Amino acid sequence: ARRATRGRMANSKYEYVKQYELDDTLLPGCWIVVRIDGKGFTKFSDLHGFEKPNDKRALDLMDECAKEVMNEFPDVRLAYGESDEYSFVLGRDTNMYGRRASKIVSLLVSCFTATYVARWSAHLPDTPLRATPMFDGRAVCYPLDRHLRDYLAWRQADTHINNQYNTCFWALVKGGKSPAEAQAVLRGTQAAFKNELLFRDFGINYAHLPDQFKKGSVVIRQKALLEVKRREDGSPVLRERSVPTVMHADIIRDDFWEAHPQLLGA
Amino acid sequence: ARRATRGRMANSKYEYVKQYELDDTLLPGCWIVVRIDGKGFTKFSDLHGFEKPNDKRALDLMDECAKEVMNEFPDVRLAYGESDEYSFVLGRDTNMYGRRASKIVSLLVSCFTATYVARWSAHLPDTPLRATPMFDGRAVCYPLDRHLRDYLAWRQADTHINNQYNTCFWALVKGGKSPAEAQAVLRGTQAAFKNELLFRDFGINYAHLPDQFKKGSVVIRQKALLEVKRREDGSPVLRERSVPTVMHADIIRDDFWEAHPQLLGA
Amino acid sequence: ARRATRGRMANSKYEYVKQYELDDTLLPGCWIVVRIDGKGFTKFSDLHGFEKPNDKRALDLMDECAKEVMNEFPDVRLAYGESDEYSFVLGRDTNMYGRRASKIVSLLVSCFTATYVARWSAHLPDTPLRATPMFDGRAVCYPLDRHLRDYLAWRQADTHINNQYNTCFWALVKGGKSPAEAQAVLRGTQAAFKNELLFRDFGINYAHLPDQFKKGSVVIRQKALLEVKRREDGSPVLRERSVPTVMHADIIRDDFWEAHPQLLGA
Amino acid sequence: ARRATRGRMANSKYEYVKQYELDDTLLPGCWIVVRIDGKGFTKFSDLHGFEKPNDKRALDLMDECAKEVMNEFPDVRLAYGESDEYSFVLGRDTNMYGRRASKIVSLLVSCFTATYVARWSAHLPDTPLRATPMFDGRAVCYPLDRHLRDYLAWRQADTHINNQYNTCFWALVKGGKSPAEAQAVLRGTQAAFKNELLFRDFGINYAHLPDQFKKGSVVIRQKALLEVKRREDGSPVLRERSVPTVMHADIIRDDFWEAHPQLLGA
Repeated sequence: ARRATRGRMANSKYEYVKQYELDDTLLPGCWIVVRIDGKGFTKFSDLHGFEKPNDKRALDLMDECAKEVMNEFPDVRLAYGESDEYSFVLGRDTNMYGRRASKIVSLLVSCFTATYVARWSAHLPDTPLRATPMFDGRAVCYPLDRHLRDYLAWRQADTHINNQYNTCFWALVKGGKSPAEAQAVLRGTQAAFKNELLFRDFGINYAHLPDQFKKGSVVIRQKALLEVKRREDGSPVLRERSVPTVMHADIIRDDFWEAHPQLLGA
Repeated sequence: ARRATRGRMANSKYEYVKQYELDDTLLPGCWIVVRIDGKGFTKFSDLHGFEKPNDKRALDLMDECAKEVMNEFPDVRLAYGESDEYSFVLGRDTNMYGRRASKIVSLLVSCFTATYVARWSAHLPDTPLRATPMFDGRAVCYPLDRHLRDYLAWRQADTHINNQYNTCFWALVKGGKSPAEAQAVLRGTQAAFKNELLFRDFGINYAHLPDQFKKGSVVIRQKALLEVKRREDGSPVLRERSVPTVMHADIIRDDFWEAHPQLLGA
Repeated sequence: ARRATRGRMANSKYEYVKQYELDDTLLPGCWIVVRIDGKGFTKFSDLHGFEKPNDKRALDLMDECAKEVMNEFPDVRLAYGESDEYSFVLGRDTNMYGRRASKIVSLLVSCFTATYVARWSAHLPDTPLRATPMFDGRAVCYPLDRHLRDYLAWRQADTHINNQYNTCFWALVKGGKSPAEAQAVLRGTQAAFKNELLFRDFGINYAHLPDQFKKGSVVIRQKALLEVKRREDGSPVLRERSVPTVMHADIIRDDFWEAHPQLLGA
Repeated sequence: ARRATRGRMANSKYEYVKQYELDDTLLPGCWIVVRIDGKGFTKFSDLHGFEKPNDKRALDLMDECAKEVMNEFPDVRLAYGESDEYSFVLGRDTNMYGRRASKIVSLLVSCFTATYVARWSAHLPDTPLRATPMFDGRAVCYPLDRHLRDYLAWRQADTHINNQYNTCFWALVKGGKSPAEAQAVLRGTQAAFKNELLFRDFGINYAHLPDQFKKGSVVIRQKALLEVKRREDGSPVLRERSVPTVMHADIIRDDFWEAHPQLLGA
């Protein structure tokens, strides 16, 4: 709340209602994951003519929102996003807002949403925003590093599965099949079948698709030279800063974690 | 999540992590209040040059956000706002998202924030948005009608107390006092003293200030004639619709509740 | 914990583990019901040769435990029991142990269990206790008087249904049927059929069975003359006290509540 | 609940009240500690003439209760007790009662209390039970092995601190000081001072006191030969069984945990 200075007074008669605010502290010592998810984005993406199966502009916008969340909340160590969802990881020892679930979740969602609207026109300049984009959020605690790794692996495996399916589905639909026919072709098929279908019938080599589509986006802080001001002669003054940076890396295997030991470190 | 159709597969190895999502259902049969609150709005309002003690443009923007929340979520019966906070009331019997706290809170916050950014330039056309506006949110349950009434009375009494204090404070500061001096003048003073100070020293009759400042904003649904389409000759076709409507009414006394019995009704 | 006086010292290194104790406060302003339930009492009652379908000695023991709970915990207003379960009602405004769920539930369960063992031999003098009787417990909040009434009606209706079924079942089994045959006879039958079966085949008029079996036990505090000490001549000094008293009344209809208005009163 | 077979019927009108039972599942993947604590045991121990500062009979009774809890609940891996409290450790992966807090806590408390009453006369044969012994309980989750170790170290360090203080306090009181004088002597003193006081003034070598008093009691399962039946000739048939066994070991240092690797193992 915004107040010049608090003028406390005879409000005491009603203040008992504050006791009804129950504590929702998240268990200390655990990793906290906040996953946010677009509300009704099938309809939202149709309404705004998103390209299928992936719209790079919309994905870039999501990535920018995630970076803004990490700029605003230093306790977020890592983010992982795909499609219309993003997961944010807070360290075991974070004491951000006393680990209160509703405070953490609502602020991350709010920051993400605000940026989504504010930066929309930069990413989709020819598409007016015609509906209110909304994201829900929830917090989940993971006790062990292994659980956190498995959570992120779960999301990235999901990205792969969905993307492969959707790539086939939309190739079939663009090739003239009805959605129901396309579903029938794909029902119960394995990855190998789908790869061959794409290659044989549509000339698409799945392995050559952009990593952004196949692997989703990881955001971690990386050292980078940032311009912090300009000298009188107009030349930039650069300083090394830790900057949220988007990658499209494999986060299932150990390599990523060995390359960035600070992510799981104390 | 947005998916053409779900391609379920060998993701099962990681799916155990879903069990860590604990239930956060709110107690059935209670009124649910979701209060959202601006993060760091003292700084945010300075950054954007909000007028003191009240900036009508910023308050109107808040009110518009609340109306959008009520448009998107029919289970919100009533909203009450002041300064940079807004409370939303869901009926006892709502089953919106199975009464899950994080789902309800995050979506209301997201809708509110999205609208705040999207409609900013309509309300403050000469002020570019220079920071990310953020709101936190929390859900509180109230068992009895009396508790809900007292909650809303608590917020409206708070509005009055803050507004009276802030009106004095900024009058003194604009009149040449330092903030510390202004605080010293007001410390421990009663309402009557403040009213007299305003009138005697600054010619301000507190009773004549706008109700929007003194009472805050109540939003309820009211019947109104809405244009639903146009005839061939260009004349509008009007239909009666229930529309979120902003009022600046007293919600502490019984009159308001007697005039709108549907608000507390089953 | 029991300590002469606290000797606080260098234990501070480990004390951070206390932060892991999360708050489990029950929502204020609601009725609190703690229901306790025997663990494995089918087996327990077989082991101790309880009479079927009802063993008055075991039911009296349960009732005595409930009275002891009400003696120990004045905030329990009313108890209702049947078979191997008992429900305890705490008033809306109770602040017993700060409304912490685990504290309240564990202490009621502990008091009940301790009394069950301590008073076992008084009620079943010829039956040694051959296993550890155990009860689980849980707390549930009810916002409205109507919810509390319906909760208790739910339990008493359950008593009736179970008792009628069990009376038939055991009559059939004692009459020579196997358990499976008895179940087959009763499957899907209505109350009228069961009453007639009891009367026609076994000469049992269900209406004449003891209320303790048909209605379960209600415990409320009633005024009674208690001997508080003895005079020198040996004559008792009596004082009016409020004493937990067992009844076998109908608590579904309004009469009971109208006769005891203090139960739902503030 | 104990029922021959369930006769479900027209109870449906009231069954909505079951929805008010909210989920209280404990976070998966964490150690669960249930600590139970005597209610009002200062008074209880006075009432029953417990020896000061430690009554071996009462401590043995506590230990026997803990063993019974471990006999009844195989998912309890380890217990640690001192004075009138006992902590029970359930493994990370336990799914006992779906990890529902109230179910787990109430049953452990109930089992402990039942045994306390049932075995009272075996341990204090000359002391009739004159009050209802009660224990409260709570569940706490610990994500890491380190946290669990620190929790147990916290309790054992507390045992040591309390015992040293109480040994001095009661020596002083038995030596003629008032409780207030004894407290004044001990206020703010260090361990070395207390040890010297005991030795110099009372001839007590603290190091020679029983480990049960200084270290409390640890209960773990150990292999032992148990008589499972008797042969016709009356000779016992022995089988190796895993049996809850009381020790008075140091559980702060690593030795204990290295000697019993199964305790922290998967």
